[in-house]
Amino acid sequence: MTSLRTPEVGLAAACCPTPGQPFLSAEDARRKAFVFKALADPNRLRLLSIVKGAESGEACVCDLTEPLGLSQPTVSHHLKILVDAGLLHREKRGTWAYYSLVPGAIEQAAGLLASL
Amino acid sequence: MTSLRTPEVGLAAACCPTPGQPFLSAEDARRKAFVFKALADPNRLRLLSIVKGAESGEACVCDLTEPLGLSQPTVSHHLKILVDAGLLHREKRGTWAYYSLVPGAIEQAAGLLASL
Repeated sequence: MTSLRTPEVGLAAACCPTPGQPFLSAEDARRKAFVFKALADPNRLRLLSIVKGAESGEACVCDLTEPLGLSQPTVSHHLKILVDAGLLHREKRGTWAYYSLVPGAIEQAAGLLASL
Repeated sequence: MTSLRTPEVGLAAACCPTPGQPFLSAEDARRKAFVFKALADPNRLRLLSIVKGAESGEACVCDLTEPLGLSQPTVSHHLKILVDAGLLHREKRGTWAYYSLVPGAIEQAAGLLASL
């Protein structure tokens, strides 16, 4: 069960600025930028979009290569970045890995902007 | 008056996916990623934070170098990226340039995630 993992950086760590700070601290900025870096690639946004739209709520990595016209190693690289940022959850079942949105992660990423 | 400028990419162009698309189109993904790339740097997030918190609603470039400990050319480089992404408005008055948040831009950037 890996859904309870707490990444050291990424969404779980990127919270609110310390009260009383005149502006975003260097550490908070680093954590937030880490999440936006994961979102700063067109292919990763399209992968998120496919997983978000999956009827079963998850997508097999085997179904993610063809729509983007990318190789599986490239897709796996992008998926790892999205997992590390706390946006996607990965579950290995048998031969394949299945990806689903971390509940609330998209909304939490949007919230990072409100707390600048 | 430059506040009515419409960047070819960035927030003004990064809108909703075409209805009927099974997932985010390559073009929409490119436009959204362009905005997130602007946000994917700790120093740019801190600059946005300073401008957002400025009492007068704007910050002189001359006041943005010291808080981050960066050179003025580096700060100007980051500010240009934020302006190009449609997040900051730049107005030159006399010797200095003044930066303010484009109204609604932060909320619009957050909304890019809702429409993945």
